[in-house]
Amino acid sequence: MAVLINNLCVIGTGLIGGSLCLALKEAAAVNTIVGAGRSEETLQKAQQLNIIDSYETDISEAVKDADLIFVSVPLGAMETVFEKISTGLEQAGNTKAIITDAGSSKQLVQQLAEKIFTDISAGGSDRFVAGHPIAGTENSGPAAAFAGLYKDRRVILTPTDETDSDAIKLVTEMWQKTGAAVETMDAEHHDKVLAATSHLPHLIAFGLVHCLENIDDIEDVFRFAAGGFRDVTRIASSDPTMWRDICLNNQQPILDMMKRYKDELDMLYNALEAGDGEKLMEVFQHAKQTRDKFTH
Amino acid sequence: MAVLINNLCVIGTGLIGGSLCLALKEAAAVNTIVGAGRSEETLQKAQQLNIIDSYETDISEAVKDADLIFVSVPLGAMETVFEKISTGLEQAGNTKAIITDAGSSKQLVQQLAEKIFTDISAGGSDRFVAGHPIAGTENSGPAAAFAGLYKDRRVILTPTDETDSDAIKLVTEMWQKTGAAVETMDAEHHDKVLAATSHLPHLIAFGLVHCLENIDDIEDVFRFAAGGFRDVTRIASSDPTMWRDICLNNQQPILDMMKRYKDELDMLYNALEAGDGEKLMEVFQHAKQTRDKFTH
Repeated sequence: MAVLINNLCVIGTGLIGGSLCLALKEAAAVNTIVGAGRSEETLQKAQQLNIIDSYETDISEAVKDADLIFVSVPLGAMETVFEKISTGLEQAGNTKAIITDAGSSKQLVQQLAEKIFTDISAGGSDRFVAGHPIAGTENSGPAAAFAGLYKDRRVILTPTDETDSDAIKLVTEMWQKTGAAVETMDAEHHDKVLAATSHLPHLIAFGLVHCLENIDDIEDVFRFAAGGFRDVTRIASSDPTMWRDICLNNQQPILDMMKRYKDELDMLYNALEAGDGEKLMEVFQHAKQTRDKFTH
Repeated sequence: MAVLINNLCVIGTGLIGGSLCLALKEAAAVNTIVGAGRSEETLQKAQQLNIIDSYETDISEAVKDADLIFVSVPLGAMETVFEKISTGLEQAGNTKAIITDAGSSKQLVQQLAEKIFTDISAGGSDRFVAGHPIAGTENSGPAAAFAGLYKDRRVILTPTDETDSDAIKLVTEMWQKTGAAVETMDAEHHDKVLAATSHLPHLIAFGLVHCLENIDDIEDVFRFAAGGFRDVTRIASSDPTMWRDICLNNQQPILDMMKRYKDELDMLYNALEAGDGEKLMEVFQHAKQTRDKFTH
């Protein structure tokens, strides 16, 4: 049986891209993997770790023989990378390559793809399948990658009506090879759900640590931090660049969720200030019921 | 060698009280343990689980022979329990009993002790040692108790200048038998640090789940919740009564910390609304540095 992907090109070989490579190799679902990206040091490290078989620092060169191109770079770098992919495929006359990404917001990525992939070559952006694996750790870089990252996790694809069905099929099968469950939804719904479930919690965590860092007792805060504080702030160790880019690229849905959350905290503040134990009890009980219902 | 504690009376035999009993039994540091509390069902369960040797539903009765009394009830029940302890000790002419507690706020508990333990019998409140083990899980009740809960955790004692030194010594040694490290500080400092490190994070978690529970996509929020959301919201499954009581009993320090946090979120909201990537980057970098510095 032929492997699923003959030539895979992975642009960005850190935690997300690197873990995909390791998982596909473990599943024997890929023949060769060429890595690409801005930092030669990262690419060398990825090659040493057998994440990729070879690398190119010139993205347009890296994609020329690709059957599948996986873009896992910070959202802020996506536009430049898409342009280089487009140039490379046109120059090589590559009419087969399917492109997918791992960006945490999907409406803007889809807009970028439609703006840039006007040719690739011939079918426009139809062979671009926007995707987002719901997985990660607070660590980054090739050394953080591991084959099991996507096992039993969800991957969301947000194809449009124009997206090529064979392209959706290949990207779906690729993710299934990593052990992930694949679901599709529209990009707008994705962005709203992710703002609530991932982007807002990261802002909450960064904000909590940041607002405490100048108090006199900051050392004691960390010394006496029990599990609760450690859990709430764990993701404040996430990559700042990646999170700046996510915020700027999913601005309105995140602002909507932040507004909702700020209103909630105002309500809790007022209830506590008024000594309104009944109100606090009602909120805590509802929250516990909701969380217990959905997590058990 | 004699055991550390001959007769231990534990009022409230849930996660905190029950785990202390199991740890002291494992360390052979106690002869007999009598449990007391409002719910006979809980006490029966604790006895079945060999957490306590016997129980009394009448607290005044339970304390009469006690060498050490450990109070681990919600802060809202503390006043009533202290009154029953005081009555019991006076009636029995018990002049030896040392009293300690596990409440998450210390200024108000100390005030209660000084108000109520005017006799116990003779020394006033001098044999009361306010304490707080920095440990817990989101579960509660005797079935959640385990001997290792306090191992390598910190316990804070907040004695006053009046507190009997032998009482401090016994309570310190008791906690050390569980594997915990004991530190002392003044009650005001404790309450400020705990507001930041524990109370605010719980309000953050309860608030996050509560503010999302009425959105259309709440099912998807939990379905697509990655580790970040689960971590931030884990403590929203904590006991609502306990947390209502903690909030009401440490009101001002929590309000101060909430104010600081609300200002932080306003600043982040404004930065995001303005598309100020530089500001976001600065906050995220600082937060990551602070967290990484103190946790590694």
